[in-house]
Amino acid sequence: MDLGAVETASEPLLIERDARGVLTFTLNRPRRYNALSDDLLAALTRAIGHVAADRTARVVVLAARGAAFSAGHDLHEMMARHEAAEHRDLFERCSAVMLGLQALPVPVIAKVQGIATAAGCQLVASCDLAIAAASARFAVSGINLGLFCSTPSVALARTMPRKPALEMLLTGEMIDAAEAERRFLINHAVPDATLDAAVEALVARILEKPKVALEIGKRQFYRQVELGTEAAYQVAGEAMACNMTDPAARDGIARFLDKRSRRES
Amino acid sequence: MDLGAVETASEPLLIERDARGVLTFTLNRPRRYNALSDDLLAALTRAIGHVAADRTARVVVLAARGAAFSAGHDLHEMMARHEAAEHRDLFERCSAVMLGLQALPVPVIAKVQGIATAAGCQLVASCDLAIAAASARFAVSGINLGLFCSTPSVALARTMPRKPALEMLLTGEMIDAAEAERRFLINHAVPDATLDAAVEALVARILEKPKVALEIGKRQFYRQVELGTEAAYQVAGEAMACNMTDPAARDGIARFLDKRSRRES
Amino acid sequence: MDLGAVETASEPLLIERDARGVLTFTLNRPRRYNALSDDLLAALTRAIGHVAADRTARVVVLAARGAAFSAGHDLHEMMARHEAAEHRDLFERCSAVMLGLQALPVPVIAKVQGIATAAGCQLVASCDLAIAAASARFAVSGINLGLFCSTPSVALARTMPRKPALEMLLTGEMIDAAEAERRFLINHAVPDATLDAAVEALVARILEKPKVALEIGKRQFYRQVELGTEAAYQVAGEAMACNMTDPAARDGIARFLDKRSRRES
Repeated sequence: MDLGAVETASEPLLIERDARGVLTFTLNRPRRYNALSDDLLAALTRAIGHVAADRTARVVVLAARGAAFSAGHDLHEMMARHEAAEHRDLFERCSAVMLGLQALPVPVIAKVQGIATAAGCQLVASCDLAIAAASARFAVSGINLGLFCSTPSVALARTMPRKPALEMLLTGEMIDAAEAERRFLINHAVPDATLDAAVEALVARILEKPKVALEIGKRQFYRQVELGTEAAYQVAGEAMACNMTDPAARDGIARFLDKRSRRES
Repeated sequence: MDLGAVETASEPLLIERDARGVLTFTLNRPRRYNALSDDLLAALTRAIGHVAADRTARVVVLAARGAAFSAGHDLHEMMARHEAAEHRDLFERCSAVMLGLQALPVPVIAKVQGIATAAGCQLVASCDLAIAAASARFAVSGINLGLFCSTPSVALARTMPRKPALEMLLTGEMIDAAEAERRFLINHAVPDATLDAAVEALVARILEKPKVALEIGKRQFYRQVELGTEAAYQVAGEAMACNMTDPAARDGIARFLDKRSRRES
Repeated sequence: MDLGAVETASEPLLIERDARGVLTFTLNRPRRYNALSDDLLAALTRAIGHVAADRTARVVVLAARGAAFSAGHDLHEMMARHEAAEHRDLFERCSAVMLGLQALPVPVIAKVQGIATAAGCQLVASCDLAIAAASARFAVSGINLGLFCSTPSVALARTMPRKPALEMLLTGEMIDAAEAERRFLINHAVPDATLDAAVEALVARILEKPKVALEIGKRQFYRQVELGTEAAYQVAGEAMACNMTDPAARDGIARFLDKRSRRES
C-alpha cells in the first residue's frame, strides 16, 4: 500500500496521506479538465478501497488540479463506445465511485475550484461536505450536448430541493459558488485565497472527533435517510447504543461532565 | 387535433401552439379566479393527453389570465356535492392532472401572476419549473375555510423543506414571490414587466436541447427520486445508456469535442 | 387529569392549559440545561398522552426555562448505564417522544430560547413549527464528546437539506438562529424581546382554524410524506374527502362564498 507516497504527476489521481490520517485525492488530468476517464475512475475505485481498509484514515479531501474541478465523463472515451452495454457498464462504474464515497467510514470533503460539470458536479454532490472557491462554477450540463445528466440527477435530487435541481438539469445552466451555496449543493463558498485554509479548518475540526463515532454516525446517516421515520429511529437508536460502548464516547462524556462541574462550582 | 388553434375566450382553457412546438395552456376563467372547475380539469386532462401524443411538442407553459393564477378548486361545485365518494372522485381527477404534468415527456413551466392558492399553488409546485411575477402571491389557504390542503401538501412536501411547507399548510399564510423563491416553491421571482421575457428566455433555452434527451431525463428524474439511492442509480444508468443511443447525443458530443479541440489548437 | 394546573417548580415539566385549549409544556430543569432525564422524558410521554386524549386541546407550545432550551440527553444518567440494552431502551423512549409530537392531533410549536443541542435540537426539528429568539443557538454536538447524534440525525435529515445537516452532525458546529432559519431547521428567528408575541401570534392564527381540519391535515401530512407520490395522493385525497364531511368545512366554505359574492356585487 503506497498511499503515503505522492504519486507522479502522470498519474490520473494523486494520493497524499499525512501523518494525521488525512488523505487528499487530487484529480490530476488538468489538461483534460479532470474528465473521469476509465483510468481515473479505476484509480478512484482503488483509492476508495484503500481508505475503506485503512484503519487509521481519518478524513478524505477530494481536490483537483487545474482550471476545472472535473468536467465529468471523458467524452472521447464515450464516443469510442457504440454499444448500450458498454455505456451501461461505464455508468455503473461511475455510480459505484459515487456510492463508494458515501460508504467510506470517514468524512469526505470536496474542495472545489474551477468548473464542476456533469459527473464532476455529481462528484461534489456525492461528497459528505463541500467547500468551494468563490470563483468555482457548477452545472449539470450534459443536456447542452443532448445527454441528460441522469446519473448526476440522483446525487443532485438528494442534495438540493427539486425545482433548482430540475432547472440545472433541464437548462444546463451554470451557477456560481454563492448560488450553489444558496441551493445547498455545497456547504460554503469562500474567497479563492482562503480555500486551502477553509478546508484545512474543516479537516482539523473533524480530526478532533473520535474516529469510531464518525464512522458509526456516517454509516447510519445514509442508511436511515432512506427509510421511513420509525424504521430510521430503529437504525439510529441501534447506532447510538453501539456508539455508547466505545470507550472514547464514555471518556468524552466523562471529561465534559467533569469540566462542567468544575466550571459550575 | 385542434391544438394549433386559439380557442374562443369562453373556453376554460386556451391552448396555443407555436411553430416551435411550444404549447401555452392559459387558464381562462379570470372572473372565477381560474378555479379548477370540472370543466377546467377536464380541459387540462385533454390538453395533457394531446401533448403526450404530440411527437413535436417541445415545452408546455402553464399560464393564466386575470388577477389570479388559480384559486384552487371551484368551491361552488364542491358545495353542490354531498357524498364523500363525489369528493374523492374530484380529488382523484385533480391529482391525475398534477401527476399528468410530471408524466409529460416535455418540460412544464408555470408562469405565475396574481394569486396561486390551494390547488392553484399545488399546480405551481407540480410543474417542473416555475417563474413568477414579483407581485404574485402564494398560499395553501384551504385551512382558512376549514379544509386542510391535503392534496396540495403532497406537491408542497416534495418541493419545499418540511417546516415552511407545514407553516403554509397549518396557518394558511400568504407569501410573496420573493419568499416563495427562498422556500424553493418557485425557481425565480422576476419584475412583473419582465415575466413574459423571463419565461420566453427559459423556453428558448430548453428549445436548444434535443427533445429525446429531455424526455428520457425528465422521465427518469421522477422515477429515481422516489427510490433508494442504489436503485435510483440503476434507473438513471439505464436512462443514460439509452440516451447515448440517440444520434442527437452523439452529434452533440462530437460537435462539442470538435469545437474544443479547435479552440485548444 | 390535572392539565389545567400549573405544576410546582420542582416538576421537570410544567404544563399550563389556558381556556382556549392552548397547552404550554415548559421544560423545567433550568440548572440541568433542561437535559432530557428519565423523569423529563416520562413527563413528556405522559403529557403527550394527555393531549392525544384531550378533545378540546388545540395547540401545544413546547417551551423551556433558563439559559438552555435543552442540552439533550442527561449525561449523568447515561454514564450510570453500562449495558447496550439500557442505552437502546433510552433512545427508544426518546424517539417515542419525538414521534409522539408528530402523532399529536394538534400542531406543536417549539418556542426556542438559549441553546438547543443534541436531542434538544432534535426536539426543535421534531416539532411541526419552530420560532426562536435571535440569540438562540443550535448544534447536534454529540460528536464533540464522541457520541454522534444518530437519533437527532433522523429528525434533522427530514427537516434540512442533506449537506448542512451533515456539516452540523460531523463537526458539532454551533449555528445561530438566523442560520438555523436559512437552513430550514426553524421557521423564523425573531428578536428576543418579541419571542412571546411571535409565538402567541402563531398560536392565535392556528386557533382560528377548525380543529378537525388541522387534525386530519397534520395526520395525512406525516403519512403521505413517506410514500411515493401516487400513493401519497391516495392518502391525501381520502383525507380531503373526509375533511369535506366536517360541518365546519362546509360552513367555512359557505361563509367565504357568501362574503365573496357580496363583495363582488
